Order: sequence, then C-alpha cells, then structure tokens
Amino acid sequence: MQTLLLNAADVDENARMDRVIEAVRGAFAAYERGDATMPAKSYIDLPEYNGDFRSMPAYLDVREADTDEETADGEGWDAAGIKWVNAHPDNPADHDLPTVMGTMIYSDPETAFPLAILDGTTLTMKRTGAAAAVATDHLAPSDATSLGIVGAGVQSYTQLEAIAEVRDIREVVVSDLDAERVADFVAAFEDRFDVRAGSVSEAGHCDILSTVTPVEDPIVGPDDVGEHTHINAMGADAAGKHELADSLLAVATIVIDDHEQCTHSGEINVPYAAGILTDDDIYGELGEIVVGRRAGRSGTGSATDANADVGVEGVTVFDSTGLAIQDVAAARVVHELADDNDNGYPFDLLGLAD
Amino acid sequence: MQTLLLNAADVDENARMDRVIEAVRGAFAAYERGDATMPAKSYIDLPEYNGDFRSMPAYLDVREADTDEETADGEGWDAAGIKWVNAHPDNPADHDLPTVMGTMIYSDPETAFPLAILDGTTLTMKRTGAAAAVATDHLAPSDATSLGIVGAGVQSYTQLEAIAEVRDIREVVVSDLDAERVADFVAAFEDRFDVRAGSVSEAGHCDILSTVTPVEDPIVGPDDVGEHTHINAMGADAAGKHELADSLLAVATIVIDDHEQCTHSGEINVPYAAGILTDDDIYGELGEIVVGRRAGRSGTGSATDANADVGVEGVTVFDSTGLAIQDVAAARVVHELADDNDNGYPFDLLGLAD
Repeated sequence: MQTLLLNAADVDENARMDRVIEAVRGAFAAYERGDATMPAKSYIDLPEYNGDFRSMPAYLDVREADTDEETADGEGWDAAGIKWVNAHPDNPADHDLPTVMGTMIYSDPETAFPLAILDGTTLTMKRTGAAAAVATDHLAPSDATSLGIVGAGVQSYTQLEAIAEVRDIREVVVSDLDAERVADFVAAFEDRFDVRAGSVSEAGHCDILSTVTPVEDPIVGPDDVGEHTHINAMGADAAGKHELADSLLAVATIVIDDHEQCTHSGEINVPYAAGILTDDDIYGELGEIVVGRRAGRSGTGSATDANADVGVEGVTVFDSTGLAIQDVAAARVVHELADDNDNGYPFDLLGLAD
Repeated sequence: MQTLLLNAADVDENARMDRVIEAVRGAFAAYERGDATMPAKSYIDLPEYNGDFRSMPAYLDVREADTDEETADGEGWDAAGIKWVNAHPDNPADHDLPTVMGTMIYSDPETAFPLAILDGTTLTMKRTGAAAAVATDHLAPSDATSLGIVGAGVQSYTQLEAIAEVRDIREVVVSDLDAERVADFVAAFEDRFDVRAGSVSEAGHCDILSTVTPVEDPIVGPDDVGEHTHINAMGADAAGKHELADSLLAVATIVIDDHEQCTHSGEINVPYAAGILTDDDIYGELGEIVVGRRAGRSGTGSATDANADVGVEGVTVFDSTGLAIQDVAAARVVHELADDNDNGYPFDLLGLAD
C-alpha cells in the first residue's frame, strides 16, 4: 500500500473543475446537515518572520443526493484530510517564493491510511474557484452571461474556469492596476471568451463579479455594480481586509461560507467588528441554500421576470473565506482521477508496501 | 527547491537517538520558557470506524544553552511542522494495518516551505523514547544500571534505545503477557544488554521502569517498584487509560509533560477526573526541571547518599502524553542528518524547482 504523491502539475491536471464543483457542493451540504467535522482553523503566528501557519483538518460524509456526482453504490462518499498552509507576505521579495504554500494530506477515514499527499497551493486555487461557482449557481441570475473580475492574480484564473461551468459566460471584463497581469489574463482566455480590460465599475456591471484582491480599503461601491449582480467576494482572508464598501453590503443579500470564519477574517469582518453589520444582516450560509433550507435566486432573479417565485433578488454577495471541507472534497476528486489516469508518484512513506 | 521525502527506513536511520534526545530536551525548555507555540491537539472523532484523527502543529525556538547540541552560529535553532496521526484500534484485525499511522510535514518557519515529509509512525516512536530519556536523565538515580519494561510492543524498543543514552544500562527485565513479544524483544537486544523476561514486579524493582501498555486497569502497584525507582508512564493516551495504581501515584513525585494533555488523557487522567489526584499532587512539568526552575533528582537520589542536596527523592513518575513540539524537534534532526547523508527522495511537490 503506497501513498500517491501529486505535485502541482498533477493537481492541476486532475482537479477537473466540473467534478470539483460537485464535490464542493456536496461538502457544503454535508457541513450544513451536520455530516462534517471541521475543527476551527488553528493558527501559529510568526511575528519574527511576518507570517503564520494554519492547520485545516476536516472529515465529511456526503450524500449522493446533494451533488450531481454518481457513485458506484449510490451511497455517496466520505473523505478526510488536513491542509497545512501559510501566509508569508515577504516571501516573493525576500525569498523568491510564493506568499502562500500549502501541503495537503488526504486520508482514508476508515483506516486513516494517507492515500495521497498533494500540492495544496494549486488545490486551494481550484477549490476556491469551485466555491465561487457553487455560490454563483445558487445566487446569480440564470441567464447571466458576463463575468467581471477585479484582481488578476493567481486566484482569478480559477474564478473564470469554475464559474463558466455553471453559467454560459461569454463576456469577461478584467480589472487590475497591473497592466501586465491584465494582459496575461486576457492572453490566457481570449480564445474561449470575449475578454477585455476594464474599470472596476465596468467589471462590476457584469451579471457576475468576482473580487480577488487583498485590499484593506474597499474598492467596490454601490454604484459600481448592476441591479442584479451577484458578487463573489473572495479576497478577504484576514482581519482588516475587505473589498466591498459598507454601503454596498448594506443593500445586498449577504451569504457567507461559515459564520465563525467570515466574522473573524472574511469580507464582512470589518463592519461586523465595528457593529455596522450584524447577524441580522446575514441572509444565511451557503450550505443552507445548497440543501434547500433557504431560497437562492430563481430564474433571472428580477421581479419583472415571468417567473413568479424569484427567491433572492437584487445584488447578492457571497463572502468566501475558504473551508477545510472544500480542500478535502477537492483532494478526493484529484486522488480519484489521478489514480484512474496513473498520474502521480506512488511512494511507500510508511514502509507498509510489502 | 524540493521537498525531501523520508520513509520509515529513512527516519529510522537518521533519527540518531543522542541527537533526538538533545533536540527534545531543547523543545521542553523552549516550551517552558514560552518560546514555543503549540495549539491544542485537535481531534476528529470517527465513531463509525471506531477511530480518530489528531492534528498536532507546533513551532519552537530553542536556545543553544538548553541542549548539548552545538549550532554553527551558536544561536540555537527554530523549527515548525505538523503531525497528522490517528488511532484506529480495529486496523490490525480488519485491514492488516497498524492502529496508529502518522504523517509529518516539516517546514522552514522563515518561509513556510515544506522541507520534508516524513513517516510519522517511526518518528513518534523515536521522539517518545527521547522524552522518556530526558525525564530519566533528570529524575532517575545517577547510578541507575537496570531498566524494567512492561509491555513489549512497538514503543518498547525505543525506550531502551533512548534510556541507554542517558544511563549506563546493563540489566533489562521485560514483562509482557505475550511470550512471542518478549522473545522478540530479548532477541533484539541480548547482544548489547543482559536482558531477560520477568514479572511486572521484577521489572518494577529495576532502577528505572518504563510502562508501555494500553491498559485501562492499572497493572503496577506500590509493592511492584523499588524505593527509588523512576517510572516513565508512557502508555496512557486517552481518557480512561492508566497503568499505575492510584496508591502508587499517591506516594510518588509526579512530573507531567503538559498539564492540559495529562489531565485529559495521560496517566493521571482517571484519578484526576475522580478528584483523587489534584494539582497539588503534581510536582511540575518536565520543562520546569529541564530549565532548572524545579529540582530534579541529584546524585543517587537517596537520603543516605553523600550528596547533601538530593533534590527529588523516592519513587518518581513521568506522565508522558507526547507533545507536538517533540515531533517537530525530532523531525529537524532527521531532516538535517538525512540531508547530510543524501538519504530520502527529493520531490518537487509544489512545482517550484523550475
């Protein structure tokens, strides 16, 4: 019995986005139903290096009915693992290394055998895109065809890849202060989409907007978005960070991934800490919508739509902080496909192979 | 930049016990001085599989003065990592797998780059032996030459290997209900020590006793040990487990590795929960003795010794639950020696090697 080592290229190749989206959708459902165990992220702060480590363990038991995936026995699946990840903002300048690096151990819950060890950096981008896609699928107008992206860094690519799986995206507007980043993004996607550079407001007037920046001063106000725009607020991952103006949040329907994480370090953390935004202003958690305990947006989500029951209307915001259950769900897809495709490097880490 | 993969054989070969003991001694000192960060072990319980996962992250910053190790710059060392480990008691019977399997990620705290991924199972045995050796060095009579072992399972071997580094062990008495285990243990060590099978009481009348069993009903009473025996109580790792009778603990000087872990799942957890043993009955933590804030045993530890200041006297007990800082300290030794010896398999997990 060997452990499959899956490097960045293996993860990229085997994290098939349609599968990862369904796995992540199942993870949100399991979490909502109480069929997941996810201890709070634990932090090790390293002020001497201006960085930190985070451990993100999780177990989840997903019902087949909660996803579009089919399993052999029709009984769904369960999975476990841990991601060990960091944030060291000085890495690029001082060490020519990424700010964030992750390592994921994916284990069989029945025996605890480590089935795979994966590059957690690529995995994080994939599962983050997948979460935005799940939220978009439940909250964006059904006829959405345009996507705005604010922030053209490493996380922006999987936003487009994933969201294009759940809506018929044709037009993409990308906004970033760094022209080279914008050009790279356009070059990466111009053969598949009508993609162009634009202002924050032009991006925000698309049917869907994903914000993927690390800013501490909001850059998207209420006039920068359309009447029915669904916003995926992906950037905030620490206390003090937020991308959307309080006045925009005030008029939007807010859906979060997890109450503890979002109020601590998500898009809403700053106004929440200030008391400007309270629990009464939060519509619900994404898992509640996935399992049908709360309505998402129906049809085009406009009151002038022929569809009588529009569910959520107007501007919607998904506050994504990133959950350990997403990593475990995505790792399961990658391991399964890599194993099927004979990708990766089998290694007898534990000395149990004979 | 690549990650060094170190399998069970690599860990066994490079966990040089004298070095691991000094690293673990330094870890206890750093923890006591507040120079370590160790979030509480977090558990994922899996009742459907009669098992659990545990995540054990830690960072430590060790002063050179606290160990016998010399570092190039004379400024000590720091290290970080996480062990992901389980307990699945049905594994041997149902899956032909060990009850406990561990995977360790060892990271550079300055950049968070994963320097090595190690077999955590072998590492656990080594660092557990090393903790017993540190406690023995500070608490056993200086002239101790005999070691009793109760429980001849996988953890017993490193007890002898490690303790023989800190005392001139010549005679070993091993006790286990399973004659094959005893024979295996004797065969493994008879060329180096005068080693024989014996009763629990014969083992307990040695100068040093290590108990390494998973029992829930104590098997060592006050009459089973010598007047000055130092006991390493290694077996208890869950609520409900204990190896030593309450009446033995009542007359012994008790040293623990960590208050939270020992009262929750260590040797003292059962009488502590019952209120029979209180904080007043705990002499201190091992780290306090390592840094000199509390006395250990001096000389032979007998009041009839010529040494005027005997420090701790009589029977001593070290309650070991196993700390994440031990794993990180041991992983550092293994990584450094393996790197020096060109052992292990370098792997570009994160895709950063160009």
